[in-house]
Amino acid sequence: MTIATHIATFLEKSSWIRKMFEEGARLKAIHGAENVFDFSLGNPYMQPPETFKEKLKAIADSEQIGAHAYMPNPGYPFVRQSVAQYLKKEHNADITENEVLMTCGAAGGLNVILKTILDPGDEVITPAPYFVEYGFYADNHGGTLKTVQTHPDFTLDLDAIEKAITNKTKAVLINSPNNPTGQVYSKESIDRLGEILSRKSRELDRTIYLLSDEPYRKIVFDGTRVPSIFAAYPNSLVVTSYSKDLSIPGERIGFIAINPEAQYKTDLVSGMALANRILGFVNAPALMQRLVAELQSESVDISHYARKRELLCNGLRDCGYDFVKPPGTFYLFPRSPIADDVKFVQALQDELILAVPGSGFGGPGHIRLAFCVDDQTIADAMPGFEKAIRKFK
Amino acid sequence: MTIATHIATFLEKSSWIRKMFEEGARLKAIHGAENVFDFSLGNPYMQPPETFKEKLKAIADSEQIGAHAYMPNPGYPFVRQSVAQYLKKEHNADITENEVLMTCGAAGGLNVILKTILDPGDEVITPAPYFVEYGFYADNHGGTLKTVQTHPDFTLDLDAIEKAITNKTKAVLINSPNNPTGQVYSKESIDRLGEILSRKSRELDRTIYLLSDEPYRKIVFDGTRVPSIFAAYPNSLVVTSYSKDLSIPGERIGFIAINPEAQYKTDLVSGMALANRILGFVNAPALMQRLVAELQSESVDISHYARKRELLCNGLRDCGYDFVKPPGTFYLFPRSPIADDVKFVQALQDELILAVPGSGFGGPGHIRLAFCVDDQTIADAMPGFEKAIRKFK
Repeated sequence: MTIATHIATFLEKSSWIRKMFEEGARLKAIHGAENVFDFSLGNPYMQPPETFKEKLKAIADSEQIGAHAYMPNPGYPFVRQSVAQYLKKEHNADITENEVLMTCGAAGGLNVILKTILDPGDEVITPAPYFVEYGFYADNHGGTLKTVQTHPDFTLDLDAIEKAITNKTKAVLINSPNNPTGQVYSKESIDRLGEILSRKSRELDRTIYLLSDEPYRKIVFDGTRVPSIFAAYPNSLVVTSYSKDLSIPGERIGFIAINPEAQYKTDLVSGMALANRILGFVNAPALMQRLVAELQSESVDISHYARKRELLCNGLRDCGYDFVKPPGTFYLFPRSPIADDVKFVQALQDELILAVPGSGFGGPGHIRLAFCVDDQTIADAMPGFEKAIRKFK
Repeated sequence: MTIATHIATFLEKSSWIRKMFEEGARLKAIHGAENVFDFSLGNPYMQPPETFKEKLKAIADSEQIGAHAYMPNPGYPFVRQSVAQYLKKEHNADITENEVLMTCGAAGGLNVILKTILDPGDEVITPAPYFVEYGFYADNHGGTLKTVQTHPDFTLDLDAIEKAITNKTKAVLINSPNNPTGQVYSKESIDRLGEILSRKSRELDRTIYLLSDEPYRKIVFDGTRVPSIFAAYPNSLVVTSYSKDLSIPGERIGFIAINPEAQYKTDLVSGMALANRILGFVNAPALMQRLVAELQSESVDISHYARKRELLCNGLRDCGYDFVKPPGTFYLFPRSPIADDVKFVQALQDELILAVPGSGFGGPGHIRLAFCVDDQTIADAMPGFEKAIRKFK
């Protein structure tokens, strides 16, 4: 064996999903990319907002000395101040630059947090369906991911979470608005989750962290508000990125924010600064830090995603699909008409529609459709969606 | 304990070096930063080349759709092509885009490689003095760093390396031009190292990789050439960044190049693409990828570093310091006049000179001076350097 056994196993395990993506690429090569309806990727099709482009030009034109040099590992103090100021209002908490650490996106941030808190064998609980990369992130740092099914409407099953907590639990990781389901957890459920964690921490005499991965916080519809975890539970951290709300996922910029009320905050902050460095991130990209400092309240025009959601939901409902209308994100997670979601995804491929099986997100019997595509793609795909479901219904 | 035991231990172990940096900050606060001679940081003082600024403006002005979106995890194919084309000449090897993976700097690249190749308990051998972060990088992925002292002039002790290779050795990691010594390993020594690794791989029936960390490759003096490892040994990888030669360390951009002759190349390439993703890098920052694609032959004006090297070496020689004149990098690693290098660094602090003890680089009895500072700092620090050495000589 020339590469690590672990990595070889991962490669083998994920080969089925790779094959599916390869099939998508093959279909595009045969039929032309414009004739394939690709709902498989969470790669925002929208351009970054105009203000992003203006600020980028301004930075490119400035002659500031040392603008691309190293800065403290947690990021430029002025950038962290700007983020803190925004968060103060958003989370109604007394957040300062000392509670903010700039990261290489949310994926980078989650790895930094888990490296900082996980001892070998520690467990991280996450509600399923879930973003499967979480399993890798926990494993990277000697931990194990433990999934707990949500209710059929993808809301939190708090009793199940409480039962899953053991003396190995180090964190509960939630993602709301959720990829792949689009669900947003209510304030009531977050508050109850906080109570459960407080009680279990006392019972087990163990610090349990609540981690909230929130890259879709700004992508919500019909006046939905994403509740803050900070009010619900002291030992909590928010991690997020600007990938989705500014449509810049390739740039790898995000941050971690620590609850100002967290115990042992100093250890956490020092540990995360160290972890950020030794994991090889060193610091979040300098130029993007400068940019986002000035774009705290910005986002792409969410009304476009709202319109696409209507188009897709209305279309699929008319075809007979069953789903929970997502209050946030640009994902829809309809039930597959047959239990075998991989087989149904193949049936969609026959109609030149690319989707991802729910099995790939710990949610078998469903498919994930990313509607960050243009309106025409949604409209043009409808006959195919209808034809595919008719095969089985 | 609220954070991982491992991280807490790291924090405690590195507290002495943090205290030293804090003392430097304290001195700057008292005396004014302009009155403190800071040779402690490898943060290039030079501005990026003019072409960098021009290309950045061009990218900011362009209206290219999707310029900040996700791309394949290993990086844009056109960027990897551009890097490959440059490497083809530089290494005289048949490198294509398929052998290049863009990374978040060399630190990111090294973590990606080690994640891909290390099984638990595997050893990575590195010649000391060395960049201490290597220890963390190996540890991140279940491995152990094993250091082998170089000769007193910091050239490779090949017999010692050969003796250190066991059936746990997975890689030998070299860094030439070297941080902290500035030494460049000769073609002869690299060729012999390749022979040793070939022989030992056969003897132990085990793939052993040669990894070369080369961020200072372009920062060499007096016509020094850094030999390519690719000609010397097939199972070899180069990892580097644009941090030092373009003066953009805050931007986190670099790459991994695999020897086209490496065995199991496909596994390595797939494994590294996966590792890049799951470690949370996902991909190297998009905008910086686009930039460096057009700057392959660029660098800051190295003659400035050559001049500073002369200034520092001549000045210190006149004061009675003993050192190996570095053929590359912007570091000088003089012998401390006393065995206790930490004590000597404190004596330098009394003269408002900041240096790093060699102990921090596995090279006790030395100090590291980073001469990426302006000429005046070097000149003005000389009386202090002289006063400090006189205390002990």
